[in-house]
Amino acid sequence: MTGHFFEGAEKLLEIWFIASNNNNDLDNDTLSNDLRNIPRELIEEVLNLVNCKVLKYAKSATTDTYVLSESSMFVFQTHFVLKTCGETTLLHAVQPMLELARDYCGFDIVDQIFYSRRKFLRPELQKTPHTSFEHEVAYLDSIFESGCAYVLGRTNVDCWYLYTLDKTSVSTKSDQTLEVIMTELDPEKMKIFYQEYTSSASEATKKAGIDKLFPNAKIFDYLFDPCGYSMNGLLPNGHYFTIHITPEPDFSYVSFETNVPYDQYQEIIRKILKIFNPGKFTTTIFGDTAAISLDRQRKLFLYSDYGRIDHQVVCLVDYDLFYSYYKKHPS
Amino acid sequence: MTGHFFEGAEKLLEIWFIASNNNNDLDNDTLSNDLRNIPRELIEEVLNLVNCKVLKYAKSATTDTYVLSESSMFVFQTHFVLKTCGETTLLHAVQPMLELARDYCGFDIVDQIFYSRRKFLRPELQKTPHTSFEHEVAYLDSIFESGCAYVLGRTNVDCWYLYTLDKTSVSTKSDQTLEVIMTELDPEKMKIFYQEYTSSASEATKKAGIDKLFPNAKIFDYLFDPCGYSMNGLLPNGHYFTIHITPEPDFSYVSFETNVPYDQYQEIIRKILKIFNPGKFTTTIFGDTAAISLDRQRKLFLYSDYGRIDHQVVCLVDYDLFYSYYKKHPS
Repeated sequence: MTGHFFEGAEKLLEIWFIASNNNNDLDNDTLSNDLRNIPRELIEEVLNLVNCKVLKYAKSATTDTYVLSESSMFVFQTHFVLKTCGETTLLHAVQPMLELARDYCGFDIVDQIFYSRRKFLRPELQKTPHTSFEHEVAYLDSIFESGCAYVLGRTNVDCWYLYTLDKTSVSTKSDQTLEVIMTELDPEKMKIFYQEYTSSASEATKKAGIDKLFPNAKIFDYLFDPCGYSMNGLLPNGHYFTIHITPEPDFSYVSFETNVPYDQYQEIIRKILKIFNPGKFTTTIFGDTAAISLDRQRKLFLYSDYGRIDHQVVCLVDYDLFYSYYKKHPS
Repeated sequence: MTGHFFEGAEKLLEIWFIASNNNNDLDNDTLSNDLRNIPRELIEEVLNLVNCKVLKYAKSATTDTYVLSESSMFVFQTHFVLKTCGETTLLHAVQPMLELARDYCGFDIVDQIFYSRRKFLRPELQKTPHTSFEHEVAYLDSIFESGCAYVLGRTNVDCWYLYTLDKTSVSTKSDQTLEVIMTELDPEKMKIFYQEYTSSASEATKKAGIDKLFPNAKIFDYLFDPCGYSMNGLLPNGHYFTIHITPEPDFSYVSFETNVPYDQYQEIIRKILKIFNPGKFTTTIFGDTAAISLDRQRKLFLYSDYGRIDHQVVCLVDYDLFYSYYKKHPS
């Protein structure tokens, strides 16, 4: 398999909408402000532009969820999350999604946007506009006003990029997100995610212990041929979690993401580390500015076996963003 | 003056040394570990490589100070600070200074380094290796191990770059630094720094109120022809402050820097704002990790007339670094 490579690192886009003309309470014959009104075939057309396909689709009372050939999509009433890995061109979804949101849901105002990703392992393989963060920022700046581009971490080692809008958001206030990005994973743990060793997605989910993370989740999982794994988990109250695994030893990569409340994050991260045993990992946490003590945050989120090499805080308009980079102690 | 431009934004280098063989207490005939032993003509040769000249030289019991044609240099026993603006090539000083420190002072170990600068107004005018932060980082990575490159602020608006080493430092523990970088300055205040309106450097210092900032300072100041101003101020206990002014309205720029203790910073910044009345400014503060409450820091350092647009914290090995960006409220 000389030369074989897959970029596990995802591009992650989250867009929140509001309508200048509120139609939430109207009956079904009228245009109502809900992104889930966008016909599924039109969502799939947008995903074609990004170069990925729908593998599984499901819905709950609050959430439409898609397992994709390259990662995942979640669609809620007023926002969506699209996460795509490999050489996909995620930003090509932005303009079409804005148009669909306007035409099918009456959402004429972008309330907030978050675009983020880790530094690619092999940036030279990416397609326009993902060839550099500068290009991605220029692309987004051509669509949005008041965009802010940040780089967290060490630009000459590992780093993480974020683009967001400098504005007070109406709808995102009570939201929070945790992302854990792991590299240099334990090859023994990664074997679970090869069809050679595991016969089905649900077997992989159980073997790894992913089903125990949130016992009340509805899980939609997929085991790729010959290897690789994706899962979306739906939880009550519009909460979700999603895991994507590139198990090949030369470029192993696992991402975990959830929007469950902040107070669960330390415990969740402990469980994730036990499942995947990474050599290095970063955590990014978006939390409500008012609710978090920076000093407490600094003292918490320390894990035995790992040194916290980097810890950065960015105070955004409505959020505090915490970026931490951890490395396993030499054994 | 069509096309006239000067890049006020300085490159700032600080290097701390230690000796594996400690000779601090030996008599003068022996090599003693003190950077002030480097012959002045050799320092001037290094400055030639950087493309700047010495305009004024003075010394106190703790500090050698140079006012340069492009900014300033301070030499202490175990560290030096070199700050150069315009199209100077400051990083060309690194390797020669390491050699001089080794040969004349027995300093064979670099204890810590800080290289920083604001985003240039016109990066395309800079000379190698300052044509981009990536190039600067590659240059420094070729000299130092364990270098970490950070970007603070918004890469698509205003930002500030830092390169430092990922190591516990022996000598820098009790040090701290405040830098205030101001743009869009009050043209009336800037008039003081034109020879047309002010006949001497000391008159400019008094008119502006710079002499009142630290009443016990020894001030070495310089008024350029036709405009522009630099000053170095020496204080007791190895403390200093330095101000550099590019007054032209199209690209006005003022920097202030000091190493006096952290508890004075809020009050100093208030005074500085009153003197210069900038439209925008950034503050960068390096302070002892153990001494600072991040939550307190967040609540302090707010100034009437200005909104704090960005606030970021980087927790380094021995320091907390605070970056804040302020913009004047529309009047």
